Amino acid sequence: MNPIVSSISLNLPRPSPSDKRADRERLLDGLAETGINMPVELGLKILQILPSHLRENDFSITVTLGFLRDKAKVIAINNASVYGVAIDIGTTNMVASLFDLSRGKKVSLIEMENPQINSGLDVLSRVHEAMSGKSEDLHKSLIRGVNDLIRNLCSANNINHSDICAVVIAGNTIISHFFLNLPVENIPVEPYIPAAGAFDFLSPVDLGLDINPNGIVYVFPNAGSYVGGDIISGILFSGLYKDKRPSILIDVGTNAEIVLGCDEWIMVGAGAAGPALEGGISEIGMTAKEGAICRVRINRDNYAAQIETIGNREPEGICGSGMIDLIAELYNANIIDSRGSFTDGRSEFIIYESKRKKLAIKATDIDNFLRSKAAMFSLLYVMVKSVGLRFIDISRIYISGAFGTGIDPAKAISIGMVPDIEIERFRAVGNSSLKGAEMLLMERNLLADIDRICGMITYREMNTDGEFMREFPAAMFIPHTNPALLKA
Amino acid sequence: MNPIVSSISLNLPRPSPSDKRADRERLLDGLAETGINMPVELGLKILQILPSHLRENDFSITVTLGFLRDKAKVIAINNASVYGVAIDIGTTNMVASLFDLSRGKKVSLIEMENPQINSGLDVLSRVHEAMSGKSEDLHKSLIRGVNDLIRNLCSANNINHSDICAVVIAGNTIISHFFLNLPVENIPVEPYIPAAGAFDFLSPVDLGLDINPNGIVYVFPNAGSYVGGDIISGILFSGLYKDKRPSILIDVGTNAEIVLGCDEWIMVGAGAAGPALEGGISEIGMTAKEGAICRVRINRDNYAAQIETIGNREPEGICGSGMIDLIAELYNANIIDSRGSFTDGRSEFIIYESKRKKLAIKATDIDNFLRSKAAMFSLLYVMVKSVGLRFIDISRIYISGAFGTGIDPAKAISIGMVPDIEIERFRAVGNSSLKGAEMLLMERNLLADIDRICGMITYREMNTDGEFMREFPAAMFIPHTNPALLKA
Repeated sequence: MNPIVSSISLNLPRPSPSDKRADRERLLDGLAETGINMPVELGLKILQILPSHLRENDFSITVTLGFLRDKAKVIAINNASVYGVAIDIGTTNMVASLFDLSRGKKVSLIEMENPQINSGLDVLSRVHEAMSGKSEDLHKSLIRGVNDLIRNLCSANNINHSDICAVVIAGNTIISHFFLNLPVENIPVEPYIPAAGAFDFLSPVDLGLDINPNGIVYVFPNAGSYVGGDIISGILFSGLYKDKRPSILIDVGTNAEIVLGCDEWIMVGAGAAGPALEGGISEIGMTAKEGAICRVRINRDNYAAQIETIGNREPEGICGSGMIDLIAELYNANIIDSRGSFTDGRSEFIIYESKRKKLAIKATDIDNFLRSKAAMFSLLYVMVKSVGLRFIDISRIYISGAFGTGIDPAKAISIGMVPDIEIERFRAVGNSSLKGAEMLLMERNLLADIDRICGMITYREMNTDGEFMREFPAAMFIPHTNPALLKA
Repeated sequence: MNPIVSSISLNLPRPSPSDKRADRERLLDGLAETGINMPVELGLKILQILPSHLRENDFSITVTLGFLRDKAKVIAINNASVYGVAIDIGTTNMVASLFDLSRGKKVSLIEMENPQINSGLDVLSRVHEAMSGKSEDLHKSLIRGVNDLIRNLCSANNINHSDICAVVIAGNTIISHFFLNLPVENIPVEPYIPAAGAFDFLSPVDLGLDINPNGIVYVFPNAGSYVGGDIISGILFSGLYKDKRPSILIDVGTNAEIVLGCDEWIMVGAGAAGPALEGGISEIGMTAKEGAICRVRINRDNYAAQIETIGNREPEGICGSGMIDLIAELYNANIIDSRGSFTDGRSEFIIYESKRKKLAIKATDIDNFLRSKAAMFSLLYVMVKSVGLRFIDISRIYISGAFGTGIDPAKAISIGMVPDIEIERFRAVGNSSLKGAEMLLMERNLLADIDRICGMITYREMNTDGEFMREFPAAMFIPHTNPALLKA
């Protein structure tokens, strides 16, 4: 393991009449002798404290180095601990994990709402707010939020801010721009141009982040307005860019983003398949958290729903994986037909009812869900076909996010949402955006992989794609008007 | 010419559906196409303004680049002017010149006292002051002084602080450390170790310099406690490091520093030859400025002194070159003997007398001067001999500083201060420390030369050198107890 920041202990020769090297050069020579074969930068602050550190410790010191691609930077001298923080900044939630980089261990994980949510639930409304002169506010609220995460991690684990030497951030293109206070107005309009694709390593001081002021901040690059750092990070974590055989990574958010690729090429497509799957549209929909219905069986005797909830609490709504179960069961029990219509003309199906609460699914909820599942399947079908492949050629289907964790691939196949391939090929990968950022914290050589991934990506806009449009209507059916296509 | 900062005009292709490169990558690609074959860094501040600059100018912009050895840094976008400032920070005086880097022209020169002078006339007393807890004050007073120079240059030439994109600083090792707020206490004590030999390019913001905040600051490296950036800069300007045949550079300050070398090696020696030559010791001594006697002839009829002063004003004192003239004339007119004693037993010789003022040289002044001239000659003799050379092998003798500008080599030879070689080989080079800094402003490729010079230097402490001690007494005589040595 080669963490992005690591400490090296040096026993330097003491100065003498025959060895009059200056402190800086003595240190650099010592580092070179340990095998550091890149330029090492000593900032002014470090240079100012170096002479006393050397002499108070008889020229035996520990140097904490940050590795910035083709150079290293001295972050601290004689720092006892070296921590790093990986953060996935989502549109809705931010998740941060704290790593003890010297022991290579994850110490803590924390989640909070993205404070920008007060300026709009989706990024586009935040872009509009930014364009009305509130760009700086949006930036600052994000920095405040990240500082809150860091402060909470520090206090919960009893460590100093100055022990945090690196922060790695993954977020979509607009969020990353907000984080860096870069203009966002050109991102969502033709021809969709971000201010930057990749970013140099950044100074926490320039950003106002409360970590070691000499520390390093890395923001995952994007591959265009619609392929953000979160996707790049997810691809990194999945490892699909290293496989000889093509695989798919499905990331469900506001959009569904589909990555199809192997070690030679990567195609990313996105379409409006997300909301109903993440629970954003239907009245009873919710994200996969405590109180969400995640499993549904329908008793064939009394047609009553038997449910499981996350945390075994009274249900508050239904999450994406629960919806897949529900729709599959409603169809298999013949309560809805292949168009998703109630066979007996009813207006809703009650999933749960108590004195306090009633959760029922309505015809419009089913219709919305089927649009999402149709979009998902059409995306997968059109993309796989466009590169001359068949579903059978797909080595793995990685499904990221909370949605992926709960999903039962057999049920998703049975309603025609995903291809009908062996269920062993499906892999739930959790928060792949966060996990990619965590991987980079622990292995700096992945920087080159990230660059390679960015260079391999081609983006295909699917929402307006003719073939996607043609495939979509047939995929609205359960499982499909032509079920053979699921295995095509 | 390749100035250390220069502007490049770019006509970038506009983004289109078939060219969706982000602004940053579009700019970097455009720069690479102009032949910039090194990594280019865009700081956060530049990245934040890039998108609007591109769109307001239809993607035709001017980029101001600072060249930092193996990478370039964007300093400004669409800046009208690009200026640089070279500064020689001496122990007593600071001299700064302003360059219009786009036209390759020196615009202005300004001089002021080093404000640290309030903490001691010499650097050693300032080091003691720093060690008593006033290190930060000494640093700040120097930064204030440099900012004063810059402000005066800006207002005198009607330019903005943000137009100054580069500052190059040359000063001795202690002064350079004060400038960077580095600890100085280890420099003047055995084994004489500076905090740093070379420095990375610095940010004006970190130093508190009032120039373009994205600008670059370069501080000349030192080759040890006694071979400062001012000497390195002087060597650069003299060009002796490129000559096949060995040359000498004489820099007279508090010490006299002698550089002897060629394109394969450089030796630096220093000894206490300075004060009497710069006018620091004798009652009537002064530096070479207005009112200083710079030429003396003694009328052989009435033994009266005929003088010339700088600026043709009433004399206030005598500078180093005047002293050389005076001593040579006193000796040739047989007023003093070869030991420097008055032949007629008098106690002083009157150089100038009016109702208001009398300037006379006393026996002790002559003695002090002869110590300095003996130190100078012994330094030259021991150093040249130590490398197996003879004076006749020396291609050039560069004499820097105000002292060098006024000196008459024939007179200096006649009293045995410098070797008796053809006077055509002597060159007055003026403020070579400032001029080296100016050269670097206008030619960034000299950065490699500076590194090479530092690597070539060996330092020889002469004040305590046995051979120097042995040679010194004979050199106290005018011209020498063994005049043949002057040609040795």
